[in-house]
Amino acid sequence: MYPEINSERLWQRHVEMAKIGATKGGGVHRLALTSEDIAAHRLLADWAEARGFAIALDDIGNMFVRREGADSSLPPVASGSHIDTQPFGGRFDGITGVLVAFEALEALEDAGIESRAPLETIAWNNEEGSRFIPACMGSAVYAGNEPLDDMRAATDANGETMGSCVDRLKAALPGATHRELGAPMTAFLEAHIEQGPELEANENIIGIVTGMQGYRRFTVEVTGEDAHSGTTPRARRKDAFMAANDMVQALRAELEDEADTVRFTIGRFSVEPGGISVVPGRIAFTIDLRNPVPETLEKLGNRIPEICRENAGPCTVVTDEFIKQPPLEFPAEIRERFTAAAERRGYPHQAIYSGAGHDARHALKLCPAGMIFIPCWKGISHNEAERAEPEHIAAASQIIADLLVDIANET
Amino acid sequence: MYPEINSERLWQRHVEMAKIGATKGGGVHRLALTSEDIAAHRLLADWAEARGFAIALDDIGNMFVRREGADSSLPPVASGSHIDTQPFGGRFDGITGVLVAFEALEALEDAGIESRAPLETIAWNNEEGSRFIPACMGSAVYAGNEPLDDMRAATDANGETMGSCVDRLKAALPGATHRELGAPMTAFLEAHIEQGPELEANENIIGIVTGMQGYRRFTVEVTGEDAHSGTTPRARRKDAFMAANDMVQALRAELEDEADTVRFTIGRFSVEPGGISVVPGRIAFTIDLRNPVPETLEKLGNRIPEICRENAGPCTVVTDEFIKQPPLEFPAEIRERFTAAAERRGYPHQAIYSGAGHDARHALKLCPAGMIFIPCWKGISHNEAERAEPEHIAAASQIIADLLVDIANET
Repeated sequence: MYPEINSERLWQRHVEMAKIGATKGGGVHRLALTSEDIAAHRLLADWAEARGFAIALDDIGNMFVRREGADSSLPPVASGSHIDTQPFGGRFDGITGVLVAFEALEALEDAGIESRAPLETIAWNNEEGSRFIPACMGSAVYAGNEPLDDMRAATDANGETMGSCVDRLKAALPGATHRELGAPMTAFLEAHIEQGPELEANENIIGIVTGMQGYRRFTVEVTGEDAHSGTTPRARRKDAFMAANDMVQALRAELEDEADTVRFTIGRFSVEPGGISVVPGRIAFTIDLRNPVPETLEKLGNRIPEICRENAGPCTVVTDEFIKQPPLEFPAEIRERFTAAAERRGYPHQAIYSGAGHDARHALKLCPAGMIFIPCWKGISHNEAERAEPEHIAAASQIIADLLVDIANET
Repeated sequence: MYPEINSERLWQRHVEMAKIGATKGGGVHRLALTSEDIAAHRLLADWAEARGFAIALDDIGNMFVRREGADSSLPPVASGSHIDTQPFGGRFDGITGVLVAFEALEALEDAGIESRAPLETIAWNNEEGSRFIPACMGSAVYAGNEPLDDMRAATDANGETMGSCVDRLKAALPGATHRELGAPMTAFLEAHIEQGPELEANENIIGIVTGMQGYRRFTVEVTGEDAHSGTTPRARRKDAFMAANDMVQALRAELEDEADTVRFTIGRFSVEPGGISVVPGRIAFTIDLRNPVPETLEKLGNRIPEICRENAGPCTVVTDEFIKQPPLEFPAEIRERFTAAAERRGYPHQAIYSGAGHDARHALKLCPAGMIFIPCWKGISHNEAERAEPEHIAAASQIIADLLVDIANET
């Protein structure tokens, strides 16, 4: 017996959440563990506690909302995503997967359906990695892919540590019990907006994710010498800005492919000291490189430090690869279950590959995991204009609810 | 009769001033009208009041220290420079010219020499233009080259106005009388570190400045579209960072000359929204272009908006020229006086051209004006490592003192 989800409630929850960190541009600015992000966690906890669901937190700030099963000793079947956003990001990225999972628990509660294994909604902490590097920090630590102590020591631009901010989240959720990192799960399912245009173009409303491209991320620090812009001839300059500019040109020439399969992005770039009439002595920038083919990712990524050195001119350069994740494939078993559920509900669906990284990557280390995508208006994401349709979100919630019950009762 | 300046006192004043805004790297961070900059003005006022010199302030925050002359109705003969620094700048740029001028007044006081015209030390406000744009704001407003109201409305990065900060300076100097903008001066003399390597290389200790190159400054704003770095193919991106990167390459190809006479600098460059995994939708950067030849400056500067447009790719670009100053020549009369004074004192000297812009540019609109340069270690400036020798600074102070007396008594 499957529950029927309540699409109006789900959309109302979406609207409430989108108020927390709302921007003038219609998006959301809710960086990990800021007061906005903590307020959003608090709101989810209020909703959970009103339904009698238990709350737990682990040491990296992942939040677990639990609906007990007939056999509470069984590892939970879980679904969720993240609450934090990009700087001036959208209203759907992350939070949609949390609300879709939470609605599944509420729908089961409304219908009075008991599952054998417990069911959980997870809000993985700091998925975006915009305030504390790296991204997917919460799920990575939970799965043992990043060390807890190093990640708690990560600092934001103001020198605040991740650990102290996690403690603030704990203080805001006094009713939460403690969850051990790596505690087993029966399965993990994640719904997320596509962040690409494929489902919309194909008029499908469910994308069943086959795999995820790999990515490598670097910081590049270029050091030259501050100098007066009026008096210093080019020949005597160690202009870190111009050196970085040359590096970027050379990187593009070598990394960008004609077939347009390589994703090469420079999203942060800072200049010091930053005077209009000062030749800059220090530049720092980030590189995000992604590709579905392991060999391509390996070969291109390995060239990055070399290309930077070759184009440093009179400056020095230090590159640091701070995260590297190979491409992955989700297990056929979960994909087939998603397909069957979409067929049963009559939702137009397709297989789809994920260009983005998601927390399901790390969950897959602990248990069978899988993802579904929701159509995303024009493919626009990491943007205040991000948009998804209420009925598509509802369909995803229905599929997640159906699969949670399936898997929980078969365990 | 000429006074003998006190080089020990002058150096001691230098050491005291360098403490205000001192950086770990041995430099000074004292942006215009910050609490550090106001404290430095206050310290100069303390010294002035202890010697019985009067203080005045005008509506843009220029500070005037006056030693009365025999005929107080005559326009003063003035010397000075500025107190503010670049972000993490040096200990000599600007403040040296103020202290050199102030020491001249003190030396005259010690020797009991009365001048016919009054003598003044001027600290022009906001010369660097690092916090409030444009540079040389104080002297430009005083000379009528920039409108007072617009300049008082200029805002810093936090939205504070120049005007409100000038009021704070006034409050810190309750003993200051009001000085009318554009009040006449008999002459203006400015001593400054060279900020280039020429005097050091030629083993001269006084540079007599012939002229100043012209400059044009632009802001460039590139607008594309924020997008997800993992899911958005190159063909669908409106990547403002890559467009700006192309613009910079094209600007360099066209503006940088083989003879290395063109000064082309990008000192500020900001990226929004600034997520590692977000294709940036908005870039803003500054261009500082300088050249001694009016026709070259005209031709190259006029190409900047065109080159930016031609290389914007899928993005849009807006360029704004916020300041334009032609090259200038200082009057022969003042240069000859400086030469005669250096000869009389036996200081090795030379004629020298200024690559940098200085407040004397604007003073020249009101009265005869001239500059001398002091050797600058390795030509390094706008840098915490900036350095000048106490005996060279003393020599400059002596020359300024001699000329102040000369001119004041001939008026």
